[in-house]
Parts: sequence; C-alpha cells; structure tokens
Amino acid sequence: MHSRLESAPRPIITLTTDFGLQDGYVAAMQGVILGICPEARLVHISHQIPPQDIQTAAFVLYQAFGYFPPHTVHCVVVDPGVGSKRRAIAIRTSHGVFVGPDNGVFSLALAAPGVNVQEAVILSNPAYQLGQVSATFHGRDIFAPAAAHLARGVSISRFGPTAINLVRLPYSHQLDRSGSADTTPIIHIDHFGNLVLGLTAAAVDHPEEVTFVIKGERIRGLHRTFADVPDQALLAYVGSTYDHVEIAVRNGSAARRLNARVGDEVQVIDSPFPEEA
Amino acid sequence: MHSRLESAPRPIITLTTDFGLQDGYVAAMQGVILGICPEARLVHISHQIPPQDIQTAAFVLYQAFGYFPPHTVHCVVVDPGVGSKRRAIAIRTSHGVFVGPDNGVFSLALAAPGVNVQEAVILSNPAYQLGQVSATFHGRDIFAPAAAHLARGVSISRFGPTAINLVRLPYSHQLDRSGSADTTPIIHIDHFGNLVLGLTAAAVDHPEEVTFVIKGERIRGLHRTFADVPDQALLAYVGSTYDHVEIAVRNGSAARRLNARVGDEVQVIDSPFPEEA
Amino acid sequence: MHSRLESAPRPIITLTTDFGLQDGYVAAMQGVILGICPEARLVHISHQIPPQDIQTAAFVLYQAFGYFPPHTVHCVVVDPGVGSKRRAIAIRTSHGVFVGPDNGVFSLALAAPGVNVQEAVILSNPAYQLGQVSATFHGRDIFAPAAAHLARGVSISRFGPTAINLVRLPYSHQLDRSGSADTTPIIHIDHFGNLVLGLTAAAVDHPEEVTFVIKGERIRGLHRTFADVPDQALLAYVGSTYDHVEIAVRNGSAARRLNARVGDEVQVIDSPFPEEA
Repeated sequence: MHSRLESAPRPIITLTTDFGLQDGYVAAMQGVILGICPEARLVHISHQIPPQDIQTAAFVLYQAFGYFPPHTVHCVVVDPGVGSKRRAIAIRTSHGVFVGPDNGVFSLALAAPGVNVQEAVILSNPAYQLGQVSATFHGRDIFAPAAAHLARGVSISRFGPTAINLVRLPYSHQLDRSGSADTTPIIHIDHFGNLVLGLTAAAVDHPEEVTFVIKGERIRGLHRTFADVPDQALLAYVGSTYDHVEIAVRNGSAARRLNARVGDEVQVIDSPFPEEA
Repeated sequence: MHSRLESAPRPIITLTTDFGLQDGYVAAMQGVILGICPEARLVHISHQIPPQDIQTAAFVLYQAFGYFPPHTVHCVVVDPGVGSKRRAIAIRTSHGVFVGPDNGVFSLALAAPGVNVQEAVILSNPAYQLGQVSATFHGRDIFAPAAAHLARGVSISRFGPTAINLVRLPYSHQLDRSGSADTTPIIHIDHFGNLVLGLTAAAVDHPEEVTFVIKGERIRGLHRTFADVPDQALLAYVGSTYDHVEIAVRNGSAARRLNARVGDEVQVIDSPFPEEA
Repeated sequence: MHSRLESAPRPIITLTTDFGLQDGYVAAMQGVILGICPEARLVHISHQIPPQDIQTAAFVLYQAFGYFPPHTVHCVVVDPGVGSKRRAIAIRTSHGVFVGPDNGVFSLALAAPGVNVQEAVILSNPAYQLGQVSATFHGRDIFAPAAAHLARGVSISRFGPTAINLVRLPYSHQLDRSGSADTTPIIHIDHFGNLVLGLTAAAVDHPEEVTFVIKGERIRGLHRTFADVPDQALLAYVGSTYDHVEIAVRNGSAARRLNARVGDEVQVIDSPFPEEA
C-alpha cells in the first residue's frame, strides 16, 4: 500500500447518474467510496441525466471520459433495470475502467477512437459489495464499492466471472466515421440547444458545399465556429465532441428554433452541387 | 499538527444548503473552509434543498450521513432564522459531528439507529468565526469556519457553552420503527417521484398482505424491487433509506400519479385479511 | 517541483461557467486539469450562469473569489465570443489569478476593495494549450490547460504577450462606494429572489431614514437582518456581498413580488426627511 501511494498516480473516480442533486443518493455513494478509498479524487460528470435515459448518459460519458487520465475509474448509474436480472459489470480498457449496469450505457465510449476492451467481468463477488445489498440502490451498494476497490488497485478479475456479449445501444452503431450517409440522426442535444449529429466531419467529402436539411430548413457548408455567421443564424459546424457535426443557432437555441429532438433524422446532401438535389 | 496528518484520517466536511448553485454563496463557504483547513475533503450532499425547507434538509442528511466515516463533519445551512435569536450549534455524536442552526435540521439524523449524542455546544466563541460576521450569511461567517476548525481537530468544547434542549422536528417522532400504526405520513418525495413513508419495514407484521391506501388507491404487499411489477404499476417496497417503506410507480412518478405531497397521510392496514378492512 | 510540493500551499482552481451540468463539458475541463496538475483542488463556483450572461458571471465571481486564498486560480468560461477575435487572457492580482475570455467577466472582481492587478497576458503560447484546439470549446482546450499550468507554478509571463486595455463591463462602474446617487441599478438577483443594488451601505448618509422607491413601493431604512421585519414584509438591508444594499421579502421573493429584473433602476432618497421628497 505504502509503496503504491508513492509511485502510482492518485486514483480518480468519476460519477454519472440520473439521481439529481436534491436527494442524498449521490452523497451516500461518495461516503461509501471515501470509506474504502480515502485518497480517491471524485469528479462529477453529471447527475442531471434525465431519469432512466441511458442514451443521454452514454453520450455525456463519451464527451468527457477521453480527457481523463487512463487510470480513471468511470462509475455510471443510470439503471432502470435495478433489481431485475440485468448484470452489474466492470470493463477494463486502454483508456479507463468502467463500472455500472450492463444496459449499453458504456457502448458509445467503447466505440470511441483508440479504446480497446481488455477485460470485462460480472460484479458478483460479495467481498466487494456493502454488507447489506438493497434491491433498489445498487449505485450505493454494488457500484460505488466496486469503483472504490478498483481505484485502490484490486485486480478486476477478482470481482467475478468474465462478462461476454455486453449490451450495446443501437445508437453506438450510428457514429458515422466512414461517409456517404444520406441521413444521420440527432444523437444529443446539449444545454445550449445545439444538435449533435451521428455524422462526423471526417465522413464529409465536400465540407464547403455539404447541405443539411432539417424540418424544411437547408443549412449549407461546414463552418468553423459560431462567429462565422450573423447573430441568430443557423449553422452547421465541426463540434467539440470528437469531430461530430453540430447544428446551432448563433447566440440562440437550435433545438427550440427547429423543435428538434434526439432521434430526429437530418438529410445530408454531400455533393458539390447540393442545390440540384 | 505534523503527526496528526500522518496518523489521523483525512478530514471530510459535507455541505447541505438551500443556496442553489447559481450564486457564489456555496463557493464562498468553500473558500473559507480551505483557508482554515486546506486538507479537508469537501463533499456536497445537496444545495438544492427548497428554500428554507428544514424538513427536506433533515431527511436528505438522514439519507446520506450514515455512509460517511464517523470522523466526518456535516455542515447544514438551511436557516430561515438567521439574524434572529436561534442558536448556532455543533453536536458531536458517535457517527459524525454536526454544525448548523438549532432549528431541528439534525433531528432525523440524531434519531437514526446507533447514533448517540456525546456533546452539544453553542457556537459563540468569536475566535472560530470570521473577523466580521454579517447578519444574513452565517453559513460563511460562522458555520463554515466552525466546520473547518472542528475538522482540523479543535475540541468542540472550545466553541462555546453546552447546548441543551435542542430543537426537534415533529417529523423526527414519526419514524415508526415499532409497528401498529393506522396511518403514516409521507416524509419525503425524491427526485424520481418516489414517496418515502415514516413507517419502516421492521414495523410491518404482515409484509405479504399489508395494504396501503392513498388517494383512493389500494396498494397491496411489500415488494422487493420495481421489477416485481409491470411497467407503470404502483407498488410499495422496502426502500434504500434505512428500511423505510416507499411507494413508487415503476418507470414513472408516484408523486405525479397520486398528486401526493409531503405530510399527506397514508392508511396502513397491516392485517392478514386486509380486504375486510 | 518536489520542493515546491512540500513548501507551497496546495493549488486551488475554481471553475465558473454557463455550461450547466447535464453535459460532459465541465467534466472534460476537469479531466484536462487533473492530467496537467493532479494535485489541484477543484472548486465549482457555479455552472448555472444563464447562457452567455457575462454580467451574472462577473457578479457571482465577485461574491466568492475574495474568500479564497490568494494563490487560487479562478477560471471563468462564459464566452459568447469563442472563435471570434476576442482575446483569451490571464490576470495575476494581489488576490488570485484569473483565466478566461477578455469580455469583462473579471471586471467586477478587479474593482473589489484591495485587489491590484500585477500582470495581464494574452494566452497565445501553444505549449500551454491542448494539442488540438477546437474553434468552439476554448474552456477545455485553452483555459483549463492554462489554469492548470498556472496552478502548477508556471510563470504567467510565459503564456504570451502583455494584455492592455482589458474589457470592462459598464456594470463595473456602478459599484457606488462614494455616495450621493439619486438612483442605483439592480446588479444581481439571487436564488432567493433578493435584489442586490449597485449602492453600498458605506455610501448611505442616513441609514435610518434612507428610502428606496421601486415599482411604486417605498422601503424605508437600512435594516440589519430579515428578522427585523414581519413575515412577508419588504425590507432593505446591508447584504453579505461586501456591503452592497439588498432588497428582500422576509421568507419570500422580492424579485417575484416586485417583478424586478437586473438593470432596473431604484430611486434612492438619502435624506433625513425622505417623506418630503
């Protein structure tokens, strides 16, 4: 223990939940973690995931996890299946360890560039759970202790048997990095009302002429930044989550302007002559 | 000091307020704490307590404090009486030190299983307050410094004279651990719309037959978890805050479905023949 | 490095943004910071600044920064001009280092009592930025790395050339510390609906007789605290942000009662005979 503290980087644990911050649920998880791994850095990615919205949780994790050191443990608890037979899992990768329910919430992060899965296990060993496990709050009783023990350096193989066939969101197949899509879905809408598309800039052949059609509006060209267009104008640009294309209104909300929702399809006319399409 | 740092556990201070997070109030408290006790771990239980809602603050603290190590200092500032004659207090117990106004906000935690009060004092010693104490922000000027000095190891008896007759919420008498209630109040409604009752599972004699009547709906049996009932069905189950009974809608909001509020009474028919009641 | 860690205070970085907490943006900034300066204490001042509301961000920073140790680095990202020619800056002062866009967001803090600017630079050195700088998220790519390197002790002069003529908000000239104003603006409305005025108590000559007129309501005298007036009554009092005068409703919201907004002017009759005015 002593030698590890001097040589290893300080443990970091991130938390992402749909618990909100008006109850004591997130705090209880933190208390459990600090009891097991007092030296852990705790970082809150978000606790404002809409209740039971696995897709949003998957996207928010995908936005953030890549900026953390690779020894970070990412604990996600958006868990509509708690108490059912859904598995509790941990996944060790080349860029972070993931802990949470096996419901697809990690499938976007696992599809990110440069991430390789090294080992995945089912969290079944009671030695790494609270003494009493409730049927409704595995975040506190199973996932928080697992994250803390993993952060302390316990080997992932001690937590339980290998997990295969991890659940994936349909969503994780829609990250278009290879081009020639005719349509692309809105995969996330952020706090500012910007629309993040499944399409990435690398998959666009004609960045100056490409045209996006959404709700009858035609938006031409991939811009660099908001300041390229007038106040309140719609634009498409290369966003900040990897190189996903985003649609925004400068100093406004594209979601409100277009009445757009996650899952809506956007037509992509990636041709040097888009006006003929 | 040096020897303490090597041998004692690292100080932990939790914060619970109704300040919200859009102003700089919570940050000012943290600045004060880090100036006095730079090594403190700061954990935010909640800053989204509804303004001046002592009852909700008491419940949220009760949900979380038991999962923290016993040396933790819990600072709560929900303080409608600031500037009046209400006392500022600190309470040392077998499971944590509590700092805040004497308005009952600690009375649920003090009623939790296994918690014994060891010493309670009035925070009157100006040596442990900011140089200038405002009349409206004791969180920053009195409670934050007290929490930080207590976390550093200053003896509680140095803060002021013994406090007796601490204020209790009526609420703290309604934690029914002993059975045979005919009605029980809703003592909290959480972020998901789940209703937490004063009644605990230990006080239910007939868990399979017990029937709860609320707003004309009859809910039978104490279930283990949401997955025991169909989507959108009402159920009663043993919740995750100690063993308080909760009422929920699977994948929905019981508060919205039943138009329920904290304080509403729920009828409890704890008989093997509830249908006859 | 080693000697600094033993002798210097532990680095503290505060974050203030309009990113909200439902996306992964703030977390990405934290990941970047912990990768560069693993020992940094991170304190969140607020991430709930209304989108692109520089004035509110400036006020919230002004409320909190003075309570942090002077070695603290304050990173603020409310940045409607990202991607345009607005400058990215760092400012070293007698009470903290400030990092963010040059749009006036620091101008209230710089106008606070006892704060002296020592050096200001443009953040142009790519050695202290992420390898790839996006056009839309300088918080992650420029400001977070700058804050982390400054917290580690890198000299501010290495970040780029001296910045002169920093942008100031009109707002920063309205902190009336010298008296004899006929009107004063509402410069902030807090979470409780209390109205913070530009006027400070030091500038009031007749604290017992001074009368404030707002939306047809006359409010007489500067009180010490809420408890001085009956429940639901309007009052003016010396607030907790420096000595700015505030207007509140005891146990209620003055903003709602008066339908008040930031920027509304309040008439000040600072005379021993206000009833004659």
